[in-house]
Amino acid sequence: MTMGMIYGVGVGPGDPGLLTVRATEVLAAADVVVAPSARGDGVSLALDIARPYLRADCEIVTSELPMTEARGTLRAAWACTARSLAREALVGRVVVFVTLGDPMLYSTWSYIAAALREEAPQVPVETLPGITSVSACAASAGIPLAQGREPLLIWPEAPNDYMGHWLEAIPNVVFMKAAAHLDRLADLASGSESDALAMRRIGQAAADHTSDLRSWAGSHDYFTTVLVKRRAAKKGGEE
Amino acid sequence: MTMGMIYGVGVGPGDPGLLTVRATEVLAAADVVVAPSARGDGVSLALDIARPYLRADCEIVTSELPMTEARGTLRAAWACTARSLAREALVGRVVVFVTLGDPMLYSTWSYIAAALREEAPQVPVETLPGITSVSACAASAGIPLAQGREPLLIWPEAPNDYMGHWLEAIPNVVFMKAAAHLDRLADLASGSESDALAMRRIGQAAADHTSDLRSWAGSHDYFTTVLVKRRAAKKGGEE
Repeated sequence: MTMGMIYGVGVGPGDPGLLTVRATEVLAAADVVVAPSARGDGVSLALDIARPYLRADCEIVTSELPMTEARGTLRAAWACTARSLAREALVGRVVVFVTLGDPMLYSTWSYIAAALREEAPQVPVETLPGITSVSACAASAGIPLAQGREPLLIWPEAPNDYMGHWLEAIPNVVFMKAAAHLDRLADLASGSESDALAMRRIGQAAADHTSDLRSWAGSHDYFTTVLVKRRAAKKGGEE
Repeated sequence: MTMGMIYGVGVGPGDPGLLTVRATEVLAAADVVVAPSARGDGVSLALDIARPYLRADCEIVTSELPMTEARGTLRAAWACTARSLAREALVGRVVVFVTLGDPMLYSTWSYIAAALREEAPQVPVETLPGITSVSACAASAGIPLAQGREPLLIWPEAPNDYMGHWLEAIPNVVFMKAAAHLDRLADLASGSESDALAMRRIGQAAADHTSDLRSWAGSHDYFTTVLVKRRAAKKGGEE
């Protein structure tokens, strides 16, 4: 029997037009698509983005991943998903795991890919990169993430006490999943001669952005990204 | 006369299959494509990547951008390119500026977009995000850029003296254009309990990677990226 193949495919932040050509080819060849469903209700934004490219006879499986930080529970879930992907590939099928944004940046796929190396090292696995929400936000707002020799920091949690100091050396910081920290980020920006722009649901129908971070405090939208750019350093770097 | 449109399109790191569906649609609609040519010899990697999607009657212009850090010279060149893009759009044409990777991350497009706001604010401009070389490198190597709550730093020049210290708080650092610093990065990795992987020409025919950074010292390939991941912090974050 011919060996199948497992792909981890980044479907980008929301707009099906932001999939890569290669991703659409792999989705069109898929016998099975596995999509993570955080709430276990079968709803998967990644699946909705991929759906226009699937064949009518493609089997769709939503995989519930537990909303916990308990490492043992998570590891068991990743190994379980890896084994079910491998089972399909071992009978010759093309299996695609879809994930939002890019598969190697804050994605469950990176854990599943590691579990596959343990559970089924004989199965060929390929990862296809995707458009990050960070790139999509910057394009949508018309604001560069970083220019010239400026570094860029991507920070997926609350700002720490050193952040104002770091901004002197790192003039561009992207805060992901930032909805709970909007007041602190507004303070950080005003205290460090920086501009801040908050964006949410970029690439989705209800996309939105504001430079008045405090006006969104309390909204708690999961896909909220804040770009903080230091004004002085930017000017300094440009002259 | 109908107003045209200007697009800044990220064509990704090298493989035409890594363009987005939306980018291919915009390229197919282009009346004029403008491609940066660093050496002024008409050779443009971004153009080569975009070419399969262009109409046969699409006009192709290569735009020489001066290899200098003198701001006045650069500003004049960006303004000149912006004016020539605007002239085409003002007579109703669809004009596409193509750029490697993502247009908002270390790309000339971010300067040209700013010049367009000055020179021709009445012309509609849209930026389409692209796959970064960073995402393509990570996918190709099967190594996550960042997981969970780990931050990620992108650093486009030589490591500074604080970098070993920063790695304690920022366990993932991507060094771009790293060919000249491979020995120093090897020292940094071994001195900070980190793993390092060097990659070059990812997404191109001659793609290559190594964990023996010193073996590439002296090769000076412009598209060399090094990913440094702290081992201890990674494990600490995972348990």
